[in-house]
Amino acid sequence: MKIIRYQTNNELEYGILKDDIIHELQGDIFGDFSLGKKVKSLSEIEVRAPIDPPNIIAIGLNYRKHAAESASEIPDKPVIFLKATNSVIGRDSNIILPKNAPDEVDYEAELAFIIAEDCKDIEIEKAKDYILGYCCANDISARDCQKRIDKQWARAKSFDTFCPIGPWIETELKPNNLKIRSILNGKVMQDSNTADMIFSVEEILSYLSKNMTLKAGTVVLTGTPEGVGFARKEPVFLREGDEIVIEIEGIGALKNKVSKEK
Amino acid sequence: MKIIRYQTNNELEYGILKDDIIHELQGDIFGDFSLGKKVKSLSEIEVRAPIDPPNIIAIGLNYRKHAAESASEIPDKPVIFLKATNSVIGRDSNIILPKNAPDEVDYEAELAFIIAEDCKDIEIEKAKDYILGYCCANDISARDCQKRIDKQWARAKSFDTFCPIGPWIETELKPNNLKIRSILNGKVMQDSNTADMIFSVEEILSYLSKNMTLKAGTVVLTGTPEGVGFARKEPVFLREGDEIVIEIEGIGALKNKVSKEK
Repeated sequence: MKIIRYQTNNELEYGILKDDIIHELQGDIFGDFSLGKKVKSLSEIEVRAPIDPPNIIAIGLNYRKHAAESASEIPDKPVIFLKATNSVIGRDSNIILPKNAPDEVDYEAELAFIIAEDCKDIEIEKAKDYILGYCCANDISARDCQKRIDKQWARAKSFDTFCPIGPWIETELKPNNLKIRSILNGKVMQDSNTADMIFSVEEILSYLSKNMTLKAGTVVLTGTPEGVGFARKEPVFLREGDEIVIEIEGIGALKNKVSKEK
Repeated sequence: MKIIRYQTNNELEYGILKDDIIHELQGDIFGDFSLGKKVKSLSEIEVRAPIDPPNIIAIGLNYRKHAAESASEIPDKPVIFLKATNSVIGRDSNIILPKNAPDEVDYEAELAFIIAEDCKDIEIEKAKDYILGYCCANDISARDCQKRIDKQWARAKSFDTFCPIGPWIETELKPNNLKIRSILNGKVMQDSNTADMIFSVEEILSYLSKNMTLKAGTVVLTGTPEGVGFARKEPVFLREGDEIVIEIEGIGALKNKVSKEK
């Protein structure tokens, strides 16, 4: 099922998307839920981020070819960093180039998974029981802050709008052999497969859970494949008016426009 | 006023502490609130963390003498990192040495402030209008992960129980000239004054808010003075059975015991 969240007049509403029609979501996304009656068509709503996560945990250098293009060694365990939760947006919001760091804002196509319930010390074989579902994510990064100005990646990864996720949560998916692409203004920039991941979704969940309690709703970004902007022969960064799409097989396309902070 | 949160049978309750007596907190801590009738004495309750933050933002190397003991240059702007929110505990919970990194767990006495309402682009002169209050914090850090094993500080700073805050939120405080100490098993380990900060509370809030929206309830840790365990001539790390106290003038004492993960 596809869990979608959208804006009504004053609040955010959950629904289930089926054949481009939003249906009521009866129940609770962290408990039991089922398909209710038809509400609206997808074209009539503004899609929001499908979750307000208590934490966003991201994995760096998790595709073999991206580690190579970043001139990094293949890590022997997941490289963990955090993004602040103010960075989350959904499909119908713009990525905003921040006043303080507008020049080297980069895209990163990532498969994200959402934690279904608080969990700790989960073995790899049990990991999928704790995943609510999957979405596309774009780990937007100000490379100047990340690579030259700051000591830690936190600010570079945490500007407002720097974590588009969605467009919805797909609850039925096998995550380890999926095409993943980013497309900038119609041009394919990243074109890989989650099979190139160094650590699988299950391995990441297990590793993280052995280090910290993963709270329900936590969003985990599983790393990006090769083809990011800064590592290209002619570096490419996001500019006002751009359109960047993250596409993952079995989920859909997360499309965001780019604007500038006023 | 001192805003305190404590455990009742099934839920967490806010109160106002006055002369060691808990009073009802009438209203909302993010809106208007006032002192209600007496409920219990402080000795009868279990004190919990005073807030569930949407983000924990921390500042590194923000005391001149700590930057020196860490062999770091004085930063020309705040060094930002994040702690995951699962790390928060209150006064009456133990700091737990994690199985994965039990050997080099260190304390850091810090003044923390709590954001009163969502805010962005705040000037230094207006910063204090956006602060709900202050508490003691202990930025617990697994130094082996932070300094040798991991590329980023995130995991080292985010194990469960690695962010004791409290014991309450003091809403009336001038933050820039306060004694701050950590005391391990009765021995003073850090003994400084917030006047040694490189960036003041107001400067930190303004800087952060120019980079990201600070959501209501965000906890900001403002850095630690000299005297941390790893930087001592004979390094000192937390061990099972220890008691570590963070004491800040005008707030009180945040005392936590140390135990081991089973």
